[in-house]
Amino acid sequence: MQCEVVAVGTELLLGQIVDTNSSWIGEQLALAGIDSHFQTKVGDNLARMTAALEQALDRSDAVIVCGGLGPTPDDITREAIAAVMGVELHRDDAVVERIRAMFYRRDREMPANNLQQADVPEGARVMDVQPGTAPGLICPLRRGAGAAGAADGAARVIYAVPGVPWEMKRMVSECVLPDLQSRAVQRHVIRSRTLRTWGHSESGLAELLEPEMRRLDATGAATIAFLASGMEGLKVRITAKAPDDETALGVLSAVESRARAVIGEAVFGTDDDTMESVVLDLMRSGGLTLGLAESVTGGLISARLTEVPGASDVLRGAVVPYDRAVKTGVLGAPDVYAVSSEMAQAMAAGACRVLGADVGLSTTGAAGPESHEGAEPGTVWIGLHLDGEGEAVRVRFNMARVMVRQLGTITALNLLRTRLLAREG
Amino acid sequence: MQCEVVAVGTELLLGQIVDTNSSWIGEQLALAGIDSHFQTKVGDNLARMTAALEQALDRSDAVIVCGGLGPTPDDITREAIAAVMGVELHRDDAVVERIRAMFYRRDREMPANNLQQADVPEGARVMDVQPGTAPGLICPLRRGAGAAGAADGAARVIYAVPGVPWEMKRMVSECVLPDLQSRAVQRHVIRSRTLRTWGHSESGLAELLEPEMRRLDATGAATIAFLASGMEGLKVRITAKAPDDETALGVLSAVESRARAVIGEAVFGTDDDTMESVVLDLMRSGGLTLGLAESVTGGLISARLTEVPGASDVLRGAVVPYDRAVKTGVLGAPDVYAVSSEMAQAMAAGACRVLGADVGLSTTGAAGPESHEGAEPGTVWIGLHLDGEGEAVRVRFNMARVMVRQLGTITALNLLRTRLLAREG
Repeated sequence: MQCEVVAVGTELLLGQIVDTNSSWIGEQLALAGIDSHFQTKVGDNLARMTAALEQALDRSDAVIVCGGLGPTPDDITREAIAAVMGVELHRDDAVVERIRAMFYRRDREMPANNLQQADVPEGARVMDVQPGTAPGLICPLRRGAGAAGAADGAARVIYAVPGVPWEMKRMVSECVLPDLQSRAVQRHVIRSRTLRTWGHSESGLAELLEPEMRRLDATGAATIAFLASGMEGLKVRITAKAPDDETALGVLSAVESRARAVIGEAVFGTDDDTMESVVLDLMRSGGLTLGLAESVTGGLISARLTEVPGASDVLRGAVVPYDRAVKTGVLGAPDVYAVSSEMAQAMAAGACRVLGADVGLSTTGAAGPESHEGAEPGTVWIGLHLDGEGEAVRVRFNMARVMVRQLGTITALNLLRTRLLAREG
Repeated sequence: MQCEVVAVGTELLLGQIVDTNSSWIGEQLALAGIDSHFQTKVGDNLARMTAALEQALDRSDAVIVCGGLGPTPDDITREAIAAVMGVELHRDDAVVERIRAMFYRRDREMPANNLQQADVPEGARVMDVQPGTAPGLICPLRRGAGAAGAADGAARVIYAVPGVPWEMKRMVSECVLPDLQSRAVQRHVIRSRTLRTWGHSESGLAELLEPEMRRLDATGAATIAFLASGMEGLKVRITAKAPDDETALGVLSAVESRARAVIGEAVFGTDDDTMESVVLDLMRSGGLTLGLAESVTGGLISARLTEVPGASDVLRGAVVPYDRAVKTGVLGAPDVYAVSSEMAQAMAAGACRVLGADVGLSTTGAAGPESHEGAEPGTVWIGLHLDGEGEAVRVRFNMARVMVRQLGTITALNLLRTRLLAREG
């Protein structure tokens, strides 16, 4: 089973948007054990879109076309698919009603333009999952002229999904991949597991894992790759290819446990775990509540924690004392140097007191590009108030403002995590 | 003159790396007035790379192939180009010496693997600019079978550049683009401008701009495209193609002013302007300071504003009263229903008082997936306290939690923006 990706949009060719959708789809296809040998970007042009689809169908069994399903005149993916299928479009009344209902729930009339989103090529099926106004399409077709990799006259399929990432991701996960897998004859599976880490550098991790990587190179059972992901930490991805799930998962578990033995506590979770969810779970199981006082991170820790549904069990709230007077006034911090251990600790203790929390976590520093109260850009003090004790640690990130804030955020949460683990014993 | 991009690397197809190189090259080609209609990603496989190059040459005058020039066995771009040209590789002694000298300057011996980087297809020319060990190649060839868009038997050219971004960028800027432009007979430039908007739906904008889009369709002077970008708002991109910069910029300005006339105040900026920077500038010019009280957005507005260097001129700070007791205790809000106009206004007034700010902005609501105090997920109340007056507006986003928070953030900032504009008169 081979599946290509065609990303549609002139803005992709002009470099105004980076095509991250194809990358994400490519990753999902690999994880599902479906080969993907080509990915193409093409502009909003009917002739060229049709040509790109025709060609992908000559080479592969399936094509996922991403983008061009919106309500504006440059959204012509529906027309291109109909041309390739050699059919007409018809307006699907059920889809019209679905879209109208979405506008209705937002207290708005459906603009007439949105009607074109309900146009479906004859013989295509609308996906059940429809997070936005663009319906996803499953378009089966039979090709006379097959090419290498697929038998002549074999069934082919085009999946059309919108370019809006969160809509696309739900449709690919819940509709496209299951449909593709049901069509696949020969199966092998590719499974991967990501160890989420914080505390080692990328080269440090590579050094720790070198013996294991050499071992895997020799056996070919799995591969290890590293991915620095800003606020998401440093990812270590283990990938195994095997005839079946059970074998692949067995390899993954063996490699994971050897990797954990050398990386240690820097592994904060796996796969979709986030530092935020892990910290919230640890706090919840300890019966603790959290208060934040964020200066240099400016609300980023709070914004990340509250992204997790149910964060309100743990998080009492946050104060962002961007102005010095708020540090002293609201949080009751002493009138000391703002980028200091003393200030970080006073802010953490103040967050506990003012917000009525068991644990206080704080940040203060200089995000850059300018220095702040004499502190060099990239300096971050993290304060923690836990079980009536205060402490503060200093880190330095010699990077751009956005990265200083991101790495300050994950480092602060990681400090809290390691202290909670030590407390549990 | 048409030029395609072929990005080489199995890791690109697997989504382990996002292909930002093609996006950057696409942007440079557009700025240089060179059309680029297709971009392809292909893995490290000789047959498929050759097929991708052959096909690109059938459609276009030139191809930039990016990646696969390294010293390891999976780097086979040189072989693929030689196959397409129908020639052999020969080892270029001058390149061997250049690479050896690079290692020498770093006090290292050249590993034997690097010798393969000096293999050059017969008839190809090595680029003068070589920032790393991979030489860039200019490979002219003559095709018997030309396709649409290029005369039969016309000259074609393949440029090979490494996948390392900083090496690639220097070669493209200093060698590839000048060479391409010297081959182009007819010259034109492509310039674009993005109107940043918030307040209309995508289809609503399309309806407002329909007459202008029809006008442009008829003249061909420019195109208009829409792009929903979450917290970044809804982008309207105008693209003009003209013989020279001056003409293109004239067209852009004319279209922009007609578009602004119909979209009105929903345009908050252009190109790299952000809602945050625009609001901070308006506040600064009004000599006003800001305090935030964020419940449903959980610190996201504060995190966004403090991403902008110099935000501390305006932002006094924020309180995230995630727990009800913090709303009443710290902010002094009355003990009312949390998702209400009254609570939103009390929070905004409380933010002013507690943080010592001139203007207070607040959010309270239900981000989902669960309802909150009886309010449906997606409900957001925004409170504003300005010049001693309070107001609150309600919006509903029938979307995932992450989008509710993002759209709540930009909507709150936009409310503040429109009130500041009205105040200025």
